[in-house]
Amino acid sequence: MSQETAPRKAVIIGAGPVGCLTAIALAKQGWLVDIYEGRPDLRLPSSKSAAQQRSINLAVSSRGISALQAIDPGASDRFLNAAIPMRGRMIHDLQGRQQSQAYDRNGQCINSIDRALLNEDLLEEAVRVPGVKVFFKHKVLSIDFDTKNVSAKSDTGEDLTVPFDFCIGADGSYSIVRRQMMRVVRMDYQQTYIPHEYLELRMPAGPSSEPNGEPTFLLDPHHLHIWPRHSFMLIALPNKDKTFTCTLFAPTSEFERLDSREKTLKWFEANFPDALPLIGEEALLRDFENNPRSALITVKARPYHYKDRGIIIGDAAHSMVPFYGQGLNCGLEDVRVLDLLLRKYEVDPAFHPAAGQEDTRLARALHVYSETRYEDLITISDLAMDNYTEMRHSVTTPAYLFRKSLDNILYYLTAPGASLVRPEELNARAAAQQEPFPATHPAGWLPLYTMVTFRPDISYATVRRKARRQGDILGYATWAAAAVTVGTLGITCAHLWRRFRGSPSAA
Amino acid sequence: MSQETAPRKAVIIGAGPVGCLTAIALAKQGWLVDIYEGRPDLRLPSSKSAAQQRSINLAVSSRGISALQAIDPGASDRFLNAAIPMRGRMIHDLQGRQQSQAYDRNGQCINSIDRALLNEDLLEEAVRVPGVKVFFKHKVLSIDFDTKNVSAKSDTGEDLTVPFDFCIGADGSYSIVRRQMMRVVRMDYQQTYIPHEYLELRMPAGPSSEPNGEPTFLLDPHHLHIWPRHSFMLIALPNKDKTFTCTLFAPTSEFERLDSREKTLKWFEANFPDALPLIGEEALLRDFENNPRSALITVKARPYHYKDRGIIIGDAAHSMVPFYGQGLNCGLEDVRVLDLLLRKYEVDPAFHPAAGQEDTRLARALHVYSETRYEDLITISDLAMDNYTEMRHSVTTPAYLFRKSLDNILYYLTAPGASLVRPEELNARAAAQQEPFPATHPAGWLPLYTMVTFRPDISYATVRRKARRQGDILGYATWAAAAVTVGTLGITCAHLWRRFRGSPSAA
Repeated sequence: MSQETAPRKAVIIGAGPVGCLTAIALAKQGWLVDIYEGRPDLRLPSSKSAAQQRSINLAVSSRGISALQAIDPGASDRFLNAAIPMRGRMIHDLQGRQQSQAYDRNGQCINSIDRALLNEDLLEEAVRVPGVKVFFKHKVLSIDFDTKNVSAKSDTGEDLTVPFDFCIGADGSYSIVRRQMMRVVRMDYQQTYIPHEYLELRMPAGPSSEPNGEPTFLLDPHHLHIWPRHSFMLIALPNKDKTFTCTLFAPTSEFERLDSREKTLKWFEANFPDALPLIGEEALLRDFENNPRSALITVKARPYHYKDRGIIIGDAAHSMVPFYGQGLNCGLEDVRVLDLLLRKYEVDPAFHPAAGQEDTRLARALHVYSETRYEDLITISDLAMDNYTEMRHSVTTPAYLFRKSLDNILYYLTAPGASLVRPEELNARAAAQQEPFPATHPAGWLPLYTMVTFRPDISYATVRRKARRQGDILGYATWAAAAVTVGTLGITCAHLWRRFRGSPSAA
Repeated sequence: MSQETAPRKAVIIGAGPVGCLTAIALAKQGWLVDIYEGRPDLRLPSSKSAAQQRSINLAVSSRGISALQAIDPGASDRFLNAAIPMRGRMIHDLQGRQQSQAYDRNGQCINSIDRALLNEDLLEEAVRVPGVKVFFKHKVLSIDFDTKNVSAKSDTGEDLTVPFDFCIGADGSYSIVRRQMMRVVRMDYQQTYIPHEYLELRMPAGPSSEPNGEPTFLLDPHHLHIWPRHSFMLIALPNKDKTFTCTLFAPTSEFERLDSREKTLKWFEANFPDALPLIGEEALLRDFENNPRSALITVKARPYHYKDRGIIIGDAAHSMVPFYGQGLNCGLEDVRVLDLLLRKYEVDPAFHPAAGQEDTRLARALHVYSETRYEDLITISDLAMDNYTEMRHSVTTPAYLFRKSLDNILYYLTAPGASLVRPEELNARAAAQQEPFPATHPAGWLPLYTMVTFRPDISYATVRRKARRQGDILGYATWAAAAVTVGTLGITCAHLWRRFRGSPSAA
């Protein structure tokens, strides 16, 4: 066994929010951390315009906040200051009427934030932690997990070989770490494109209400605005500068019909009559022509790790469609779970296994991560796909609204106050029990959306199991109610008929 | 429009049976064909031993033969001479007793052949067709589908750029053509490993019955031998040299338990008591220790093509588990279908589209291939997975045998002679109707196995639809029969009871 006590080296590929949070977590545990990122430093002015051109807004909720809080409490506070809370959906109908649907009975919110802003903050924080170095414009070419070396091309075009003890792939949907890991791991893997694409449009800030005053929001900033149109939809999230980032989701075939400026304007006028004047015709056409139309992909993989030396997290492990607003929340939760498992199995950053030997603790922690995290990740990915129909179609149907009301009544009656889980509390319980998700959580009725979004103490898999049981009950209750109603009606009719005819019929 | 009339260049990656048959088909249509293959020429003596070490035997049946016949009638005849017909499964129980289960009522057979032998024959044939060139030990590095260039490293280590008009990926489960195509196509893709691995063992030829005579087979050569043991199984296919190639399929965990020579022998003795003495203890242990344990993977993709310039076929497009014996049959059928569609849409090998233009006919043919072939390929892949349970478990159960008998009785009663479809006949009908699968085929009852294996005029998707309808009927029939039986029994009992008691009971 080696006598070295120097910390081991973790190489993280990808300096997005998940990569940066991982860097902070590992460095705090005592690892030396190098982050390699293919893109330029997003803090440089030259990178900013490029990043902003495609800054999809994020809706960060309790899972993301709990993860930030577990790893870096400061970041979690700063984040809440920089974000705009949204307390519900605002549904816009074809006549431009708006209807608010609260996310949570107790007024809990999801938080709109510019992806670049969150990323920048976490990056700043990561480089401040001793032991963390970041290399931008370094393109990873291949990874040899057996000799533990990353081959990369540096920003100056130099070929580098970077040795590592532990390699973390946080490099997104098209992850090279995952591709390289598939060469040594028998990985089940699935990627599926949906027929929809998305395109971002900018809604400007409104004029100030007084001369030389602050600009204003053109829509209520404390809602996530949705224009559900069944086969397609428009959404809008607020930004701190009083603009909204709008995203149009539509099937490729729908986009392809809009092949002239006239058709595009007419289509917007017909489908989003209240949004068009707010965005402005010129701005709309400019964004429509210049902004990319991007694909939406679901990625599933299993396992996520290789021996004691590699793991993929975030979108690299589980890209999902954005319709539950959980993609990044889930990626940040990955970091919280991984951090906790490394602690639970007492992985020692200064332990150097002898040549040809494994760090059995690290191998065990990664194995347990793969085994236990799989069901959660598949669940949220599937729920996100289900929500794809809910957001653009179901929210407009009476059946949905009826069910939602019933759901909320039961929630109100059986689980008062249950949606309030403070991140500090969750993290303290998780640390005490050495389990990412405490075994106990309040019983009673909890709506699915509430559990996914505001209950980070309940794993996604548990959420789905509970939601299915509740769904069954709701189904039976609806049938029973219908039966009672029909029965009562029948009896009433028979009674009235008898009175009307004057005499009962003889058998 | 270009005035050139020289043939266009098709580059095929992979010189396996599917790649070679594609080369013959395209060259006969008038294309110039280059085949690039990473491995050495398997006809060279030095390659032979390597190829034979892992020569999984193939069971070629009607779909494969029809495809050979459509493209190269000579090869189909030579193939039937080189193969050993197997007319059924021979089930070996734990006591070493053997039970034959015929594949087909009319005595039709599947054909055992060494993969290398079939490959060699098709390769010989391909290089004889004018316009075909083969480059061995050329490793493809990348493919640029937009500029239509393949980058490869030659056998002498040189970097080559090979321009193409049409690129065909016939390079197997781990296809680089597929990987490169995924960079330009939004391809849905799935790869799944099953928990089983396989390992090949050789059963030697038996001694001659007379001095200096020919060696003999140790088992009946006209059966595919199966030792089904529920969670694992052994199978054996005959070779022309009187040996058998045995393949052991077992979960990784089962293999891992066999970590000593003693355990291995004991396990064989307990599970395959009749096979062990035939293989021989020394030979068994040698193969067990030296032969690789290989993974079994299912690969699904969609679409299979890119514009007018690229397509993946065979295992590159649809790796499946080997339990239906359809993997290569299906790959050869791909070639028959592609060949027919290129003819149907009148793709002209001498037509050179102008710069920036597409060959719309070729694009259409490939599009139709992707659209129509998908359901067939998914179906056979799923059926192969279902058969994985059937072969190692179901074949031993009374319920299976009962259902199979009923299936065969209905087949006998309603569709006499229906399993006999001559390849020439299918190909003539397909060519006349310009459809890979003629619209009409005999009605009546056809067992699933018969349709998959002996009815190449019925597409896999149609097979499954018909089989499901029949399954429903079989289900109802079984219930009805059970109801009638119970009813009759009840009446009989009541009658007997009345006679026994002497008087009917009064209501």
